[in-house]
Amino acid sequence: MVYVVEMDVNIPESWNEEKVADYITREKACSQEHQQSGKWVYLWRVAGKYSNISVLDVEGPDELHRIVSSLPLFPYMTIKVTSICKHPNALKETMI
Amino acid sequence: MVYVVEMDVNIPESWNEEKVADYITREKACSQEHQQSGKWVYLWRVAGKYSNISVLDVEGPDELHRIVSSLPLFPYMTIKVTSICKHPNALKETMI
Amino acid sequence: MVYVVEMDVNIPESWNEEKVADYITREKACSQEHQQSGKWVYLWRVAGKYSNISVLDVEGPDELHRIVSSLPLFPYMTIKVTSICKHPNALKETMI
Amino acid sequence: MVYVVEMDVNIPESWNEEKVADYITREKACSQEHQQSGKWVYLWRVAGKYSNISVLDVEGPDELHRIVSSLPLFPYMTIKVTSICKHPNALKETMI
Amino acid sequence: MVYVVEMDVNIPESWNEEKVADYITREKACSQEHQQSGKWVYLWRVAGKYSNISVLDVEGPDELHRIVSSLPLFPYMTIKVTSICKHPNALKETMI
Amino acid sequence: MVYVVEMDVNIPESWNEEKVADYITREKACSQEHQQSGKWVYLWRVAGKYSNISVLDVEGPDELHRIVSSLPLFPYMTIKVTSICKHPNALKETMI
Amino acid sequence: MVYVVEMDVNIPESWNEEKVADYITREKACSQEHQQSGKWVYLWRVAGKYSNISVLDVEGPDELHRIVSSLPLFPYMTIKVTSICKHPNALKETMI
Amino acid sequence: MVYVVEMDVNIPESWNEEKVADYITREKACSQEHQQSGKWVYLWRVAGKYSNISVLDVEGPDELHRIVSSLPLFPYMTIKVTSICKHPNALKETMI
Amino acid sequence: MVYVVEMDVNIPESWNEEKVADYITREKACSQEHQQSGKWVYLWRVAGKYSNISVLDVEGPDELHRIVSSLPLFPYMTIKVTSICKHPNALKETMI
Amino acid sequence: MVYVVEMDVNIPESWNEEKVADYITREKACSQEHQQSGKWVYLWRVAGKYSNISVLDVEGPDELHRIVSSLPLFPYMTIKVTSICKHPNALKETMI
Repeated sequence: MVYVVEMDVNIPESWNEEKVADYITREKACSQEHQQSGKWVYLWRVAGKYSNISVLDVEGPDELHRIVSSLPLFPYMTIKVTSICKHPNALKETMI
Repeated sequence: MVYVVEMDVNIPESWNEEKVADYITREKACSQEHQQSGKWVYLWRVAGKYSNISVLDVEGPDELHRIVSSLPLFPYMTIKVTSICKHPNALKETMI
Repeated sequence: MVYVVEMDVNIPESWNEEKVADYITREKACSQEHQQSGKWVYLWRVAGKYSNISVLDVEGPDELHRIVSSLPLFPYMTIKVTSICKHPNALKETMI
Repeated sequence: MVYVVEMDVNIPESWNEEKVADYITREKACSQEHQQSGKWVYLWRVAGKYSNISVLDVEGPDELHRIVSSLPLFPYMTIKVTSICKHPNALKETMI
Repeated sequence: MVYVVEMDVNIPESWNEEKVADYITREKACSQEHQQSGKWVYLWRVAGKYSNISVLDVEGPDELHRIVSSLPLFPYMTIKVTSICKHPNALKETMI
Repeated sequence: MVYVVEMDVNIPESWNEEKVADYITREKACSQEHQQSGKWVYLWRVAGKYSNISVLDVEGPDELHRIVSSLPLFPYMTIKVTSICKHPNALKETMI
Repeated sequence: MVYVVEMDVNIPESWNEEKVADYITREKACSQEHQQSGKWVYLWRVAGKYSNISVLDVEGPDELHRIVSSLPLFPYMTIKVTSICKHPNALKETMI
Repeated sequence: MVYVVEMDVNIPESWNEEKVADYITREKACSQEHQQSGKWVYLWRVAGKYSNISVLDVEGPDELHRIVSSLPLFPYMTIKVTSICKHPNALKETMI
Repeated sequence: MVYVVEMDVNIPESWNEEKVADYITREKACSQEHQQSGKWVYLWRVAGKYSNISVLDVEGPDELHRIVSSLPLFPYMTIKVTSICKHPNALKETMI
Repeated sequence: MVYVVEMDVNIPESWNEEKVADYITREKACSQEHQQSGKWVYLWRVAGKYSNISVLDVEGPDELHRIVSSLPLFPYMTIKVTSICKHPNALKETMI
């Protein structure tokens, strides 16, 4: 089943550049691991903002939570989760 | 270039069932025409709401507006438009 | 999988008492049919408001949408959908 | 009487990992004590967010406040409280 | 137990003066009946707005809902309900 | 004249337990002094939140501000002030 | 005592031009009567919007409500009321 | 002096197609008259929405209001007005 | 031309009492200088809040910005600016 | 293609004056470099606020993001991005 997830990142102001860089490196590794597994289908940058819109195809809400909360920046993000399903007007047979 | 568009439909309370049915039929035809052209890539239903999240791959903002405003229900929707671009952590080379 | 759904009802001001009564009767029948099937687990009134908080245990987002959108008052409700999962601190083995 | 309570956790950015871990351990112990007493009926994770939706069956608002404010993370949560009652369309005789 | 309830009235624009006057008369009678029973303790006008702040002392959420939803204007009000309890710094032994 | 004031407390995350305890002690003393003077008529806890709803009967807005801003936690609260007056449907002759 | 009041006018869409003109004429007469009495000190148009910001110097909240609710368009306005008092940095001895 | 004005159009649901067309024709004529005078410098469509962002270069707030309120759809728009001035980092000597 | 400006002050939690006192002293001096020049016409305290509503009569938006941004607490305030003009129903010939 | 971007700056409270000055200097250099390239067409100050409204004429969303995220204060700004296109009522042939 598929979720659209919007994540806004708020880097704590007290972090120094080294700590920020470390988090960004680990964030990248973590998100790419989930992309390689095929679970994290799309990862898009919102143009002009420190935000992303993502599409995840997972077993269910437990797996969704496991993936999103594994991100190192998870505690520093404002997150909006939308559960989506097939639209009656959609031509595609599949969601993705 | 790619946009994520969220549309919430608000059917006017004064419409009778016939008028609603007519709009829904024309809405379907219109959205499917744009899906067939390849411009309207994804059309997802938000589970439990009279809303959709769509992904459109268009020439630019003029074409996006032409497509969205061609929908019969366009004047009766609350619409949120997000312009997206490539994320530095994305593995896919393309947006879609 | 389980969803928490909050529904705020907005009866159109143009409806006469007969039409309102008819909708309320059909709404009751519809919601009770889904309760009897075991899908609509809890239906709670928000004290002091024309709103309810519901808990639905469904196959997935498609079934959730089928149930909620089958309600006669669906087009006249403001709806908030929350997808929930097991909490690491929960003692219960099951969600419900 | 029954309340639905939604809690969003905001871990202070200045806390080190040890302090965070200590709070999380004590939070778990505290919430489980209230679950064992039968007062905290459901504790659900909001999928993809550092939030929970809980259902508490308490004597009244004083007991509700005693339980929620006993949580170590209480000062660092944004909390929404909804007082619920029996819905006229509900088939179940009891609230829970 | 005590609730603070804020009600904002939105008279439907289609009502003629006679219908408005009829509703206002019945609203007054209904609210005064609940005041006389001692359940509706305070009924205050928000200065400069078509709103009131009320304090109700009721058996529980079911009775609160019965009272508020008995108001003729109930379907045309935006309502905020707050469940309150004893404050540790309060000198008064009782809530009211 | 009477005001309804809602105060949400946000304890700064950098304060240690000693400092928090000191503020809470002084807050209590300050609020009780104003209650004893008869100006601060009601001080209610919002169930489940670090907030209160208060009713103050004061000479005017200057006195209201003097009282509320004398609270040690005043700079760390989000405050909503509502000026209230007699409601035409109220049975009580007085506001309190 | 002095209030700052912001009023946003929402003319009902069903009114014909004659009815709108009638209301606007009576609104003008009513607001000017209160200006002449010296109670309605300032009446400013918000540039580019169908809104005004007003400053009223009244006996108290009851008189404020009497004046604002006497406006013919009162039921069709969204109103924000702010009770103001002397600022410690103000040079003027009086409020107005 | 220069203002940025954002206008969201809400066509009343009760208008028939003829009335809508008439308003749109007059709206166009009116906005073009102000563009020709040089006061309405930019008129941009928000892509995908029934909204525009405009830049007006006027004598002052009175003229701004005269122009915006002369639009036939003025009573049916939600309008946001921002007064802007020279930015210290701007290279251009003039605002436009 | 005249602006209504609402300023909410958010003192940083990390400031010690000395630093706060220093800022408040300089804030007072700065605001009084602008009051003496006749530009800052009214400075009102919002009763019960760490906020003010001010009325400034300036040459234009550049001067408004120069005055407001000269306040020492400018970076720590949430500010709402409203450009106002003559109201057709106002009896006063002048704005102030 | 053209974007309207609104940026609200939130200087971290922990920064000392030297650090603030350094950021402001680099911010100026960076924004002027993009203005000189012709990409950043307008940079306007919102009168009375620590905000700007900017108009950028770029290749697409990727370039927009590259420019905005190159600003040293990018992580400390709240940013609103609006994608705009030609308005049917606009007289100008070009967007800028």
